[in-house]
Amino acid sequence: MKDLLEYNFPEDLKGMSIHEMELLSSSIRSFLIDKISETGGHVASNLGVVELTLALHQVFDSPKDKFIWDVGHQSYVHKILTGRADQFDSLRQFGGLSGFPKAHESEHDAYDTGHSSVSISVAAGMAAARDLKEEDHEVIAIIGDGSLTGGLAFEGLNNIGETRSKVIVILNDNGMSISPNIGSVSQYLGRLRTSKGYLGTKKFIKERVASIPNVGYSIAKGLATFKNDVKYSMMDHNNHGGAFFEELGFTYFGPVDGHNLEDLQDVLQRAKSLDEPVLVHVKTIKGKGYINAEKHPDKFHGIAPFDKTTGALKSQSTNPSWSKLAGQFACRLAEENPDIVAITAAMGDATGLGPFAQQFPKRFFDVGIAEEHALTFAAGLAKSGMKPLVAIYSSFLQRGYDQLVEDICLQNLPVVFLVDRAGCVGADGETHHGVFDLSFLSHIPGMTVLTPKDGNQLQAMMEYAVSLGTPCAIRYPRGTTVYDNDITSIYLGRNLREEQAGAIDIWAVGSMLECGRKVSEILKSRGFQTGLVNVTTVKPMDLSVSPDSRLIITIEDNVLEGGFGQRLSAEIASMKLPDKQERPQVLSFGWPDMFVEHGSVGQLQDKYGLTPEKIAERICEEIEGKTRRFTGKKGFLSIT
Amino acid sequence: MKDLLEYNFPEDLKGMSIHEMELLSSSIRSFLIDKISETGGHVASNLGVVELTLALHQVFDSPKDKFIWDVGHQSYVHKILTGRADQFDSLRQFGGLSGFPKAHESEHDAYDTGHSSVSISVAAGMAAARDLKEEDHEVIAIIGDGSLTGGLAFEGLNNIGETRSKVIVILNDNGMSISPNIGSVSQYLGRLRTSKGYLGTKKFIKERVASIPNVGYSIAKGLATFKNDVKYSMMDHNNHGGAFFEELGFTYFGPVDGHNLEDLQDVLQRAKSLDEPVLVHVKTIKGKGYINAEKHPDKFHGIAPFDKTTGALKSQSTNPSWSKLAGQFACRLAEENPDIVAITAAMGDATGLGPFAQQFPKRFFDVGIAEEHALTFAAGLAKSGMKPLVAIYSSFLQRGYDQLVEDICLQNLPVVFLVDRAGCVGADGETHHGVFDLSFLSHIPGMTVLTPKDGNQLQAMMEYAVSLGTPCAIRYPRGTTVYDNDITSIYLGRNLREEQAGAIDIWAVGSMLECGRKVSEILKSRGFQTGLVNVTTVKPMDLSVSPDSRLIITIEDNVLEGGFGQRLSAEIASMKLPDKQERPQVLSFGWPDMFVEHGSVGQLQDKYGLTPEKIAERICEEIEGKTRRFTGKKGFLSIT
Repeated sequence: MKDLLEYNFPEDLKGMSIHEMELLSSSIRSFLIDKISETGGHVASNLGVVELTLALHQVFDSPKDKFIWDVGHQSYVHKILTGRADQFDSLRQFGGLSGFPKAHESEHDAYDTGHSSVSISVAAGMAAARDLKEEDHEVIAIIGDGSLTGGLAFEGLNNIGETRSKVIVILNDNGMSISPNIGSVSQYLGRLRTSKGYLGTKKFIKERVASIPNVGYSIAKGLATFKNDVKYSMMDHNNHGGAFFEELGFTYFGPVDGHNLEDLQDVLQRAKSLDEPVLVHVKTIKGKGYINAEKHPDKFHGIAPFDKTTGALKSQSTNPSWSKLAGQFACRLAEENPDIVAITAAMGDATGLGPFAQQFPKRFFDVGIAEEHALTFAAGLAKSGMKPLVAIYSSFLQRGYDQLVEDICLQNLPVVFLVDRAGCVGADGETHHGVFDLSFLSHIPGMTVLTPKDGNQLQAMMEYAVSLGTPCAIRYPRGTTVYDNDITSIYLGRNLREEQAGAIDIWAVGSMLECGRKVSEILKSRGFQTGLVNVTTVKPMDLSVSPDSRLIITIEDNVLEGGFGQRLSAEIASMKLPDKQERPQVLSFGWPDMFVEHGSVGQLQDKYGLTPEKIAERICEEIEGKTRRFTGKKGFLSIT
Repeated sequence: MKDLLEYNFPEDLKGMSIHEMELLSSSIRSFLIDKISETGGHVASNLGVVELTLALHQVFDSPKDKFIWDVGHQSYVHKILTGRADQFDSLRQFGGLSGFPKAHESEHDAYDTGHSSVSISVAAGMAAARDLKEEDHEVIAIIGDGSLTGGLAFEGLNNIGETRSKVIVILNDNGMSISPNIGSVSQYLGRLRTSKGYLGTKKFIKERVASIPNVGYSIAKGLATFKNDVKYSMMDHNNHGGAFFEELGFTYFGPVDGHNLEDLQDVLQRAKSLDEPVLVHVKTIKGKGYINAEKHPDKFHGIAPFDKTTGALKSQSTNPSWSKLAGQFACRLAEENPDIVAITAAMGDATGLGPFAQQFPKRFFDVGIAEEHALTFAAGLAKSGMKPLVAIYSSFLQRGYDQLVEDICLQNLPVVFLVDRAGCVGADGETHHGVFDLSFLSHIPGMTVLTPKDGNQLQAMMEYAVSLGTPCAIRYPRGTTVYDNDITSIYLGRNLREEQAGAIDIWAVGSMLECGRKVSEILKSRGFQTGLVNVTTVKPMDLSVSPDSRLIITIEDNVLEGGFGQRLSAEIASMKLPDKQERPQVLSFGWPDMFVEHGSVGQLQDKYGLTPEKIAERICEEIEGKTRRFTGKKGFLSIT
């Protein structure tokens, strides 16, 4: 067996026998476990699609045929099969291979994904373009059963079902999204999974077709019509095999064993031969072939570097994660207040709500990957007197923007958002950085936006938020923080001064406080008078500006555009000041107006000038520039 | 027959006979046509739900039972039946009755709607709250077939189907959203509409139940089980009556004639008696009973005051609408460039794309009410080399925020957004004002945001946008503008100076230029030196600040938070200036940080200080304040 790096993929796949492909599957699995255990990454979803990806690349011709990987974290095998196996040591590392499809990496990555449920709509668009240009290639959307819960996927199916455009949807059904799956469609798929629909149909059609003179598989359209005529009679009345998809205008094949290469080839060939929308229902096992991942597919969904043998994480922080604390505080609040309920969109464990779900099963709602519904559902609960906590990743909250405006804030409903993974998230990169939330939350009327510096403040803010009775978002980053169980913090709706005011006043937003403190130290060591403010309250804005301030530095883990610094600057420019008080200038630090790539948070902060050292350096430059500019008057800042 | 105002609704409905209700239906229709022809409003959708609303209020007990009106423009009959008939002279007028459900108007308005497809999720939330609190009431979502296209509606169905919470979904199927309906679900409903499913089932069950000893309608659960057993055998194999909804976990009743009060009462009673999710499929005729509206349901969807007899609008502007011009220019661009395609989400005519659809039927895509899909579909087209124009209302673009970020901008795709109804829209109120787009568009990396002052500039910008090859949004308001066919405008990506710079420089964004001009005139008449800039380019920001400027006034039809003025202020505060040039101050005018109610645009501008007179007044106050403040130094501004 050749080493994976010796192949010339995807070409080398074309002539391979089933047996060779099976051996290759094993090699790929070992390779994935070896590599991801070192770099961290998405394990279980990739192990689940080894055979499927092999079959796809054998039956179709990428890059002429377009694969759209929904969400995209299951694209590792595809990357291996398109000449990128040699880059896996750099997977998810700064400057290295992305964990998601990226057109800039390879022409085989037809579309950059990252968020759920988009692939069918993308495929619809690509198929429409192909048909307008009278080109001849396939467009294949590969979507998990979890992603199918998202309304956008339904909108895509509904549209293709009407236009009848040739699109192949591969439903990669592993019975899991990240957590076990949700919704009646999921239950429906569960019934289908246990049916004999596909094989029965296949056998039936093969026999019938064989018995008709001069008719073969190549007469695709005729076969399709024929199949339509027979399909309902084929169906088990208890599951109507695929009737749901057929009603949506798709020809349904399945379920097929996603680890049987021969069946996969067969069904994909058949899908290819038809000239109409086709949905192929493939049953896969998340984590297939790696016992640790098969046992704990959610733990091995996305994981840090781990020990291959035991599956244990290689390093674990002693500090608690923000998510864990949020979940813990949610339980305490729920113990005191029976009106508190918790809602997640398929991120229950990841957002720390596992214990809540255990302790309050009736008051816990996992609605599946359906962020819009999560928010409007919360609005309905709140309108009926409940106090919903919605735990959600910052970048996925983007999908509920309209619901934030129209459902939650317009009616001023007491929904509390626990906005997790806010700011730069590191290795997941562009599609997952939560760097827009301060911008899109702050301009919505009636929204309160809070940013805790640590676990104690998070606790105090959650208590405050629940007591508010109006919409409130608390945003905190990925990773760990400090929390002292013996300290009782109280949050009073105001920013907190950490160091007494100086000519330079550093306003550090939420968890950037530590960075602000270091900047302050550096500047002090250079002889400047600096103050430090813990910005807890991004909206409404606390404009307690010290009369001593000549230069206010804002530091936030958000884009500058529409962010805290920009808003503060505008407020200060227009605020009424006492006579003779000079208006301080504002110098803001945050993420630039571009999409920031993947890498460790530290590496990215360094690249974009957001380390304490680089911030301090930039401040000194600014001061020197100003001092020069004001030559002849008094210096811009007194240096003690 | 009593006058409508003499009834004590909803109580007086309870004892009414079918005949009395039929007479009442006629009265309500006449009342609606009389009133709306004077005030303008939604005609066709309300005429279509007269009997349905009567039956709902007779069978259920509002406000104990909760009605959630999806979108909400069909709630006029409900308003009449809940004590608000006497307020219809003020419908959609400033300070008067809203055209949408508003909890502040009546306890019978259980939830404020405005955007599409939310009702099922709201109902799910309310039902969950009811069940947690062990209350006993019904939650009824009334949703049109058009709104069912929205993915959020599917997410709601999918969730309820799993939780099995008792929710009644009334599918008000008129075969239309605003334009004729789209999608395979719509085609599916079309097949159901012509089936005999409901009546057949009803008759069948009545007969069967009657034949079983000691079993009556009250044994709801048993009956439901029984129905489940028989339903598939009842189904016509060509339409599978309701199988789609049954797969989603709903018990399906229908289709029922939505203008037959007896059938409606019967089916609603039955739905009420079950303890499980029920979907009642009601066939209605949009515009029912008013010949002009039945003939032209889209024209009479939302309409300005009209002549009752002829259906003609009472007044029509001689100027063209922004929408019409946008559609016209889209056609011209498409004539020159075969890669241009146009996409709408059920707003083809309303956004002016009617002629495009006629001229380029293959390059025109109406995806139905599915804004998320519209955007991701556009991304797929663009990724495959097409140049999509997406015409969409500003407030509905909110629903595509995540797709703007992740699909369009992250991949830097050449999608051009024609953002219609931006800014204050007037009579539709809170839910429809497009006052957030400058804020949510400007912080997305790679987005270009343009604001035309008139039709000629719109044309030039559309040419520019298509040539850009990157994401671009052109936003313009509701209503009409000037356009001179003989003038060829060119847009060069910069703001345009309209009046030479003065100490006060007025930067008016897009169509606010006329307001800015008037402000300038007023200030000049008071002896100030004023300049005027036509802000065409909100992002990237054109920072051509005149060295003469001491005070920059920004005027925009957007909220101040995150808007143009705030961003300009922050930029100016941090920009490098030549030595000794004083930094100008920025005073911004825009909508406040609150939800603005309905009324005419002029009335609302007056209330919120956005008329030229009030803006000028405020500027003078500011200057006086500053002049006082700087006493002893030179005055803040020289008054010539």
